[in-house]
Amino acid sequence: MCVDAERRAIVLLSGGLDSTTTLAWARHESYACYALSIDYGQRHAVELAAARQAAAAWGAVQHQIVPLDMRWVGGSALTDRAIEVPVHSSKGIPVTYVPARNTIFLALALGWAEALDAHDIFIGANAVDYSGYPDCRPAFLEAFAAMANLATKAGVEGRPFRIRAPLIAMSKAEIIQTGLRLGVDYAGTISCYSPDAQGYPCGHCDSCRLRAKGFADAGLADPALSFDRADGGNK
Amino acid sequence: MCVDAERRAIVLLSGGLDSTTTLAWARHESYACYALSIDYGQRHAVELAAARQAAAAWGAVQHQIVPLDMRWVGGSALTDRAIEVPVHSSKGIPVTYVPARNTIFLALALGWAEALDAHDIFIGANAVDYSGYPDCRPAFLEAFAAMANLATKAGVEGRPFRIRAPLIAMSKAEIIQTGLRLGVDYAGTISCYSPDAQGYPCGHCDSCRLRAKGFADAGLADPALSFDRADGGNK
Repeated sequence: MCVDAERRAIVLLSGGLDSTTTLAWARHESYACYALSIDYGQRHAVELAAARQAAAAWGAVQHQIVPLDMRWVGGSALTDRAIEVPVHSSKGIPVTYVPARNTIFLALALGWAEALDAHDIFIGANAVDYSGYPDCRPAFLEAFAAMANLATKAGVEGRPFRIRAPLIAMSKAEIIQTGLRLGVDYAGTISCYSPDAQGYPCGHCDSCRLRAKGFADAGLADPALSFDRADGGNK
Repeated sequence: MCVDAERRAIVLLSGGLDSTTTLAWARHESYACYALSIDYGQRHAVELAAARQAAAAWGAVQHQIVPLDMRWVGGSALTDRAIEVPVHSSKGIPVTYVPARNTIFLALALGWAEALDAHDIFIGANAVDYSGYPDCRPAFLEAFAAMANLATKAGVEGRPFRIRAPLIAMSKAEIIQTGLRLGVDYAGTISCYSPDAQGYPCGHCDSCRLRAKGFADAGLADPALSFDRADGGNK
């Protein structure tokens, strides 16, 4: 297997603002990027179309979309239609938390990384705005890396894995500024937890509000909202 | 949610000798068992039928079979038909190793555990006979538990998860003796990496040979081999 010619990385890519910025970051670090998206029965399947677009735009070597229905797990507003996506922030861990989601996604990325002889796994986790999610914290990512290096042939043989989360300590405004500097077109990214049937953001969920605040704090307009709609724009 | 009435556990159940014994163990510890099988494109899909039979026999509250095609990962004789299952043991980590398999399976179990408010996850990992697999070692399982308790809402809120591997230090003969004492019917379990189209074991792969040695060391006949076949028995 020819592995010296390129430095490979797996990039978890949802098609949202954070993961698209992370892909751009990995490409700017000259990684040959293998993008991994999980089709897990999320409400916002329109994300996958955005992920495809981002993978193509950033020259991913391969973009793997893995079907993994997580509706049987239950317990989250993102996978269980019986639980409403809230329109206002709540204290503590939000109901949009999907049990062990980042653990599952990173585990799949780890399997692919080992098979490809890639040793860097990029994830758009962010501990500032999303501090309610336990699996977006540096301590979790460090524990995952420690576990990964005991779990795998590569880890045991001295070729350790690194979990890279370049956005972990940035505010949403800093992420947007970073992405724009790298050349990300945010018009193509989608962040909403409950977009309408056409894929337009609701404007009210946690994710929409964080994104809006990020663009406002950066003193910028969100290009994803500057489109023409037959019905006159966002609700 | 009523959780006081029962002590719940997730049991990873392949339908093989080890995981069936583990399910029996968890039932003998009076856990309400939620059995989890992963249909991952393995060569030995006949395992899933054995898993169904074991889940029913041991009164699992629920048996969830999750389709997760892992053939795209590649890199293993168990998921990639281009790689032959070896008929003789090799030194080091065998080609039947599936990259990050136990990490992925435990991650799915963790998600389900959190949604069900279960805090014990049972896995039939064994470090003695399968010492070639890095993700069957106690150090890996401990690192997974540490990571799980940082990854999850339950872990963060002080309701930690335990990864239980009751067979981890047993020889295959000890596992068989333990299972028989618990009442396991090994006629229904399948361990072969490459059974024939009817589900009969090959008798030659690592897994068949370990199983045969286990029964021989225990001074017992393998009941899975004492069936009538039109062609006169195992090849």
